[in-house]
Amino acid sequence: MFDKFNDECGVFGIFGHPEAANLSYLGLYALQHRGQEGCGISASDGSSVRTHVGGGLVSDVFKDNKIFNSLPGQAAIGHVRYSTAGGDSLKNCQPITVKYSRGSIAVAHNGNLVNAQEVRCDLEKNGSIFSTTADTEVIVHLLARSKADALADRIAEALRAVRGAYSLVFLSETRMVAVRDPSGFRPLVLGKVDGAYVVASETCALDLIEAEYVREVQPGEMIVFDKDGMTCSHPFKEKKLSQCIFELIYFARPDSTVFSQQVYEKRKDFGRQLAREHKVDADIVIPVPDSGVPAAIGYAEESGLSFQMGLIRNHYVGRTFIEPQQSIRHFGVKIKLNAIREVFEGKRVVVVDDSVVRGTTSRKIIKMIRKAGAKEVHMRVSSPPTSYPCFYGIDTPTRKELISSSHTIDEICKYITADTLGYLSIEGMRKVVGVEDGTCGNFCDACFNGEYPVKFPRLTDDDQLGLF
Amino acid sequence: MFDKFNDECGVFGIFGHPEAANLSYLGLYALQHRGQEGCGISASDGSSVRTHVGGGLVSDVFKDNKIFNSLPGQAAIGHVRYSTAGGDSLKNCQPITVKYSRGSIAVAHNGNLVNAQEVRCDLEKNGSIFSTTADTEVIVHLLARSKADALADRIAEALRAVRGAYSLVFLSETRMVAVRDPSGFRPLVLGKVDGAYVVASETCALDLIEAEYVREVQPGEMIVFDKDGMTCSHPFKEKKLSQCIFELIYFARPDSTVFSQQVYEKRKDFGRQLAREHKVDADIVIPVPDSGVPAAIGYAEESGLSFQMGLIRNHYVGRTFIEPQQSIRHFGVKIKLNAIREVFEGKRVVVVDDSVVRGTTSRKIIKMIRKAGAKEVHMRVSSPPTSYPCFYGIDTPTRKELISSSHTIDEICKYITADTLGYLSIEGMRKVVGVEDGTCGNFCDACFNGEYPVKFPRLTDDDQLGLF
Amino acid sequence: MFDKFNDECGVFGIFGHPEAANLSYLGLYALQHRGQEGCGISASDGSSVRTHVGGGLVSDVFKDNKIFNSLPGQAAIGHVRYSTAGGDSLKNCQPITVKYSRGSIAVAHNGNLVNAQEVRCDLEKNGSIFSTTADTEVIVHLLARSKADALADRIAEALRAVRGAYSLVFLSETRMVAVRDPSGFRPLVLGKVDGAYVVASETCALDLIEAEYVREVQPGEMIVFDKDGMTCSHPFKEKKLSQCIFELIYFARPDSTVFSQQVYEKRKDFGRQLAREHKVDADIVIPVPDSGVPAAIGYAEESGLSFQMGLIRNHYVGRTFIEPQQSIRHFGVKIKLNAIREVFEGKRVVVVDDSVVRGTTSRKIIKMIRKAGAKEVHMRVSSPPTSYPCFYGIDTPTRKELISSSHTIDEICKYITADTLGYLSIEGMRKVVGVEDGTCGNFCDACFNGEYPVKFPRLTDDDQLGLF
Amino acid sequence: MFDKFNDECGVFGIFGHPEAANLSYLGLYALQHRGQEGCGISASDGSSVRTHVGGGLVSDVFKDNKIFNSLPGQAAIGHVRYSTAGGDSLKNCQPITVKYSRGSIAVAHNGNLVNAQEVRCDLEKNGSIFSTTADTEVIVHLLARSKADALADRIAEALRAVRGAYSLVFLSETRMVAVRDPSGFRPLVLGKVDGAYVVASETCALDLIEAEYVREVQPGEMIVFDKDGMTCSHPFKEKKLSQCIFELIYFARPDSTVFSQQVYEKRKDFGRQLAREHKVDADIVIPVPDSGVPAAIGYAEESGLSFQMGLIRNHYVGRTFIEPQQSIRHFGVKIKLNAIREVFEGKRVVVVDDSVVRGTTSRKIIKMIRKAGAKEVHMRVSSPPTSYPCFYGIDTPTRKELISSSHTIDEICKYITADTLGYLSIEGMRKVVGVEDGTCGNFCDACFNGEYPVKFPRLTDDDQLGLF
Repeated sequence: MFDKFNDECGVFGIFGHPEAANLSYLGLYALQHRGQEGCGISASDGSSVRTHVGGGLVSDVFKDNKIFNSLPGQAAIGHVRYSTAGGDSLKNCQPITVKYSRGSIAVAHNGNLVNAQEVRCDLEKNGSIFSTTADTEVIVHLLARSKADALADRIAEALRAVRGAYSLVFLSETRMVAVRDPSGFRPLVLGKVDGAYVVASETCALDLIEAEYVREVQPGEMIVFDKDGMTCSHPFKEKKLSQCIFELIYFARPDSTVFSQQVYEKRKDFGRQLAREHKVDADIVIPVPDSGVPAAIGYAEESGLSFQMGLIRNHYVGRTFIEPQQSIRHFGVKIKLNAIREVFEGKRVVVVDDSVVRGTTSRKIIKMIRKAGAKEVHMRVSSPPTSYPCFYGIDTPTRKELISSSHTIDEICKYITADTLGYLSIEGMRKVVGVEDGTCGNFCDACFNGEYPVKFPRLTDDDQLGLF
Repeated sequence: MFDKFNDECGVFGIFGHPEAANLSYLGLYALQHRGQEGCGISASDGSSVRTHVGGGLVSDVFKDNKIFNSLPGQAAIGHVRYSTAGGDSLKNCQPITVKYSRGSIAVAHNGNLVNAQEVRCDLEKNGSIFSTTADTEVIVHLLARSKADALADRIAEALRAVRGAYSLVFLSETRMVAVRDPSGFRPLVLGKVDGAYVVASETCALDLIEAEYVREVQPGEMIVFDKDGMTCSHPFKEKKLSQCIFELIYFARPDSTVFSQQVYEKRKDFGRQLAREHKVDADIVIPVPDSGVPAAIGYAEESGLSFQMGLIRNHYVGRTFIEPQQSIRHFGVKIKLNAIREVFEGKRVVVVDDSVVRGTTSRKIIKMIRKAGAKEVHMRVSSPPTSYPCFYGIDTPTRKELISSSHTIDEICKYITADTLGYLSIEGMRKVVGVEDGTCGNFCDACFNGEYPVKFPRLTDDDQLGLF
Repeated sequence: MFDKFNDECGVFGIFGHPEAANLSYLGLYALQHRGQEGCGISASDGSSVRTHVGGGLVSDVFKDNKIFNSLPGQAAIGHVRYSTAGGDSLKNCQPITVKYSRGSIAVAHNGNLVNAQEVRCDLEKNGSIFSTTADTEVIVHLLARSKADALADRIAEALRAVRGAYSLVFLSETRMVAVRDPSGFRPLVLGKVDGAYVVASETCALDLIEAEYVREVQPGEMIVFDKDGMTCSHPFKEKKLSQCIFELIYFARPDSTVFSQQVYEKRKDFGRQLAREHKVDADIVIPVPDSGVPAAIGYAEESGLSFQMGLIRNHYVGRTFIEPQQSIRHFGVKIKLNAIREVFEGKRVVVVDDSVVRGTTSRKIIKMIRKAGAKEVHMRVSSPPTSYPCFYGIDTPTRKELISSSHTIDEICKYITADTLGYLSIEGMRKVVGVEDGTCGNFCDACFNGEYPVKFPRLTDDDQLGLF
Repeated sequence: MFDKFNDECGVFGIFGHPEAANLSYLGLYALQHRGQEGCGISASDGSSVRTHVGGGLVSDVFKDNKIFNSLPGQAAIGHVRYSTAGGDSLKNCQPITVKYSRGSIAVAHNGNLVNAQEVRCDLEKNGSIFSTTADTEVIVHLLARSKADALADRIAEALRAVRGAYSLVFLSETRMVAVRDPSGFRPLVLGKVDGAYVVASETCALDLIEAEYVREVQPGEMIVFDKDGMTCSHPFKEKKLSQCIFELIYFARPDSTVFSQQVYEKRKDFGRQLAREHKVDADIVIPVPDSGVPAAIGYAEESGLSFQMGLIRNHYVGRTFIEPQQSIRHFGVKIKLNAIREVFEGKRVVVVDDSVVRGTTSRKIIKMIRKAGAKEVHMRVSSPPTSYPCFYGIDTPTRKELISSSHTIDEICKYITADTLGYLSIEGMRKVVGVEDGTCGNFCDACFNGEYPVKFPRLTDDDQLGLF
């Protein structure tokens, strides 16, 4: 409903804990913001891998203890999924679980392979059949076709054939394997609880189960967990790091640490930097809740302006909403946010949001604020203009839907009906995350500048072309 | 899951609009915070009153347009319900709709009658049968037994027999009637949209449908809406005003205006006053989100301390949550809140919450904050100690569960493991809402001081005694 | 889907058994043919009456043991419901359970009161409110208004005010009461199992729980079951018996005994008598399954013709069926029945059905049989033409929909495309049930001859007029 | 619940009809007796193959027109499934739909491959992954690995690698293909309606949609349906015919024609032959409904005894049934059948059933009949003793559960408490289906004599050994 980029998944894994499935459930609970379309858990008791998946929120799919009783074992992995496609979404839920010559394997994937189509074609030419449209299935095929003896070697061989973004957790009858692509696009952290090992997309999942944060799974690292403990290796050719900067801007939960950076603090810093770059004479600073809150606090602190929660969010917004049929009004944003007249009346307002994708929501919010009596509305965005689609695991609109790909700041400002509009500069953003040499450093900020760190096959498919 | 008083309902009504049922749905959407157990809408097309009720959230009960097609007409009323009782909750969903000698009547009720049991006994002695355990059913019986000709007179006659808190909306085939009890316990506001009249528990429901706020329905006022417009009367003996001050402290949405006071601003003022009464040398001010946010902003502003969102709320908490069975940990609060280490590390923290009921949640939150590295934790509560149960429509625990009814501030401070604990004073609270003469003014603050403005029958029932 | 009269309910009750609710469930299971729209059970543990009702089949509404755990106690009553009305059917499910001055009362009703509207009007004039549209609610109001001390006296007083058909089971905290109207329209039998008393609409419910059949509850009899055993009384003015002959023709299960007559045997006798009245030179006798089977066996035995199951019934017909949208064919009857070509090819066929209401199904069946190759089709109906609607608890179409109310036998024969058509004569039918004096004896056969044994108020309501 | 062999699926396909999906739904409706665990339909509009599957009955899985709108196209195939496995049954629902190098392929399978495990092992060794446990998935893998250009050739190549029983329907974007294994184990018939081609497991599916029966799909025949019409071929080595005789005894609907034999007539003939082989002096012949009815009619005709429906079946038996927890009684069979005392009292009874598997149900039925007053009970079974498990698509218990595999007729007679017991002889059975040369002719009757026509790999797996 909101005008945001959408994350495309979160993964979790735990090895060596008597309540593996239940702690996975808790971990997925904490990662729910990374995907709300479906989720699943696979558990192994040493001889069988069992999986339960379903459409909807973690709390809906895992509703009673019977489900956990059907997922026994000391190892488990889980997945939350964001899905763009309608239709047979159940089929695309993860973990994907299959049988092959060596037994069972379940896999949970966060990311996107840029050469999945190519590899899939090759596999199909050799007789492979595909049950889903997920690029993850490609990995399982490659793994099954490997002649290597050790699971780790089979996984490594499979992953050497693909390119792109992947934070992966595998589960076999006796092992759990965590892998992060050599570019390190997506986050993956390692923790420990009660002697068991945990991996998760973000540290907030460790916090909930009171696991201790150990370190990041390193880019290009593969960790095998089995009865003898944990074995690390780096089976891939090293690559330049390309950590997704949007995780720090919007995706990750503010209480998480990803890429060894604390999200809330970085967001506040983006806001502070934004204030330095785009000062304005105003009375109050207002966040677009909830994601804009840290940057707005930072902006207010830096600018010395008063921070107010002038937009109130309805916490009971359901998945479906029935618009009145004859009405000329649209309730889209109003159903989620309301402006407090007494806060805005006669005020010059700075509105802080973390990103602007199509501009449609910003426009509605600014109109709402003006209707509530604001004298001036100054839009401030704590990231640079998002002008390019992502191919590394983020659901972005096609390029022509990205307002900043085809409009100047002035045009956007006019469209959203703001008095002034200021975006954080690319340089400012990089500085906040510690890159001061004019490059993107260890980060991927392709969505802001179109410099894609991992090449993808020339796109000929119309849909994909539409992305540009 | 949180340690709060619970509101017991919200009501909505609209008369003279072609999409009456659908706008009622939107109104209930905005009032969802007042009750999440069930909801319902009754609509009249001039000759029939039709009702759809169900258990759960508004977005679950009203899932498709078919339901709205079955609720035709230009008048509709709605209700959201908080329910303490388990079991046959569907039966207790409102609007209650019955047939009697004059046709159909539907009624939605926010409040609680203190003499319902007595009146019910009298009615039963005269042969009445009751389908529900709701006190609202008493009103319908009284109305049906009235010999008066006009609906308004029948309603007035019925309500003269009851005592307590009620904001009521009635719907007959041809009329809508809104009534507020003479003490004015519960809020009820009047608005207009597209020429249609609207009544709602709070103004946030008007905002969502873009209705203009006209005024409060006055205490003791009855408004009849029919094809000729709106007719106001005051059919009850005047009483001292007793507006529920807890609506301003916690229940109402911060973007609402109730009792002609703007909630967000008052909450900030409670926080400012709290800062004046309980200063402390500290580094940061942290709200318990979301309800503690305005008071924390006020506290931070008044004290000059830095405001931070150090506790992050999980927005995907479902209605059920499956605790691991063997674990010694409890995840209750952790599932909803997480503390950001980088915010708290080495800091002296002021935590602001709007109220403390049993103290259990505060204790867990403070422990979480200390674990995140805080050096000192100072709890500040933007209302006085809640020592007495409510009998006017709020779901409160029995007296012995209210920690402040039997413990000193020092004991509570120790229990919740805070370094210091400060509650807003009753005088300070009253001052914020404009009462400076040492009385409770136009408000009921019985939950803080035990001075109940409307007497209730001597309680002999064990359960009720338990309340004291 | 089939062209039949529909029964309007079945009742069950058990007193003094540790598994009262569960045996009620079994009893309702056996009575499911009497109503499939909804069902419910009320149980008492001596101090509380608890009720669970729901829409759908018994096996759907009572799906798990949790429900039975919520219905503790040694006494229980149950109800299965056939409902003509759509909409809020849940509200009309029985047992109806209310609280009144003496405590709780639950009631399950099979039958129909002819003066319910009148009594309801009187009650409403005295201030009663009605939650349902069921005539049963009238009884509860009357009972609650009675000043009598004993439950039995209150029930008797209530029932003296109503006229019509009722087999009723009441449940209070400490008593169960079974009553059958003085005309004895609907069946009600008494049994015993494990020392507990059982009442049920038909003996098939006794058989399933292995209860011994004791006797019928007599017309006009009231039986009170309490801790001291069973007390019988006859509190009503005696009336001429008017047992519903259609129970023997179609409603009751063939394995039941109702009105002290064994249903399967009577149906076979109807078939035998039909053969005597309407002989025809033919090759085979075919029943319309399943209800026509016993009469067809009787017809075949008497006529010496060969009995064949030439029409096969699909046992998996669901409650909904989606007709192809563009097709010109209609699948209504075909979805349930199919004709075996090899049975019919070149044959002269006698088709036996128990009754014909609108004639639409007969027409389709005969066409199906001809298409399967039959040379001649002779329709035989084991009851007289149904020309009059029922007011005593059976769901019948309006008079003009009853084909025999406005058409001669010849016209009907032509419409249904039969070669010959023969109905059982009224005299023949009466003879089979033992009445040979030219009267209807102890039976009501008003649907065949319009002689209504219990008068009803002059009908002015358009809908009801439509019945004539 | 009943003690029967269980069929393992039914298939349907239609090519060239504007309402292909909807007619498939009707076809599956008619084939529902072949599998009630799940069902599905795949449809192609010439460019995409879309599938909808679900657990439960056809009428539950296909509940509204929206589903049919999502299955556009003039070609469709469908499947009903009987499943032995619990757990993730949804995953095993058919049609199985996958993508491979040539596009999409959906497949519906009735039968069982005896070398599936072997082939699967080979495939896995070459890197195949399996999503389901169904042997059907093996076929899809083989097909995808074929290098042949034409779909028909790929299918033929795949099927040459497998052995066992299969009636298969495939659907690609532009073609439908029907194949029957060279032994002809399972039935498959061909029909036409409105110019469209139809294939179905039984003719009853043709009847419902008013399709004309053309002929059987021949054993070993493959028929390709495309825009140019229908092309037949016989791509497999010819084999001795082995049509499943149990289809005639119990599985197929009595109104169907399978293997060019009319089922109802054959069942009557089995009954007649049984009467000739096992005459007994008795009063009445009673079927175990519904499957025993035709044989009982035949027995009665041949013996001259009176046919009666003394056992009444409850048509509302749900999928779950909650036994009383404390009761010592078991309600299993009683919930489905009841005996009419008036029919049995004092009688010498012949009970006819089509088959006896474990004997448990027969035992309960005979006890029920005796309790109803029968003087003598003579059990007659219209098939020979079932002593061997099936490996060709029928769900049979392990050998030790088959009562006749380890007990003499006398022992069984004693166990089921019958006075006498007579099974149809193998010779008699063969004679009825036209085989008089002392061999099994064109039929497989391995379940009666253990002579398996298609060899299977030496079984080493414990579970399978258990079958012997």
